Amino acid sequence: MTLAPVLAALSDPVRLKIVRMLADGCELSCGAFGFPLAKSTLTHHLKVLRDAGVVSQRAVGTSRMTCLRKKDLDARFPGLLDSVLIAAAVAEGRRYAQKRKPATLH
Amino acid sequence: MTLAPVLAALSDPVRLKIVRMLADGCELSCGAFGFPLAKSTLTHHLKVLRDAGVVSQRAVGTSRMTCLRKKDLDARFPGLLDSVLIAAAVAEGRRYAQKRKPATLH
Repeated sequence: MTLAPVLAALSDPVRLKIVRMLADGCELSCGAFGFPLAKSTLTHHLKVLRDAGVVSQRAVGTSRMTCLRKKDLDARFPGLLDSVLIAAAVAEGRRYAQKRKPATLH
Repeated sequence: MTLAPVLAALSDPVRLKIVRMLADGCELSCGAFGFPLAKSTLTHHLKVLRDAGVVSQRAVGTSRMTCLRKKDLDARFPGLLDSVLIAAAVAEGRRYAQKRKPATLH
């Protein structure tokens, strides 16, 4: 697990969302992410994250379950994942506030 | 300045080195980085960092001086730059230790 590939894996909005969804320690199947994406696209994003060491995957029946390698990431790059998760949450909040803002102010 | 492009800009070993060299607040000309790279390659890396908002550049005579937008990054993504810098320093130290390690231990 090296820094540049980890940052590259995190440098995509979909992959950031995947990481946020896994941040509380849950393990999700591909279908459970609920993205409006082609299965092959989601599989590609998960592969990029897995190759960089950000997530791990295991087969359960016919599903592939994905979880975040939070402990490994925190041990290797202290504080990095948390600051990325906070920044992603702030950015999401900003986008949400922007959408809700009325067009004109009185 | 948005998160994914900032992470993408930081996800390259040369650009991480550039950011580390600028982290103490200094302003460097292209020549001062001292990389064994073609000028066009260095210019490309600096452009990626500038486009993402990681560095700013200003013309001084015939030179272009580059500095890190640390304050802006810290304000927008608290803790992110510091954790990346620490992770990059740790990785560099690890590489250095690896190189110095004797081939066999007695």
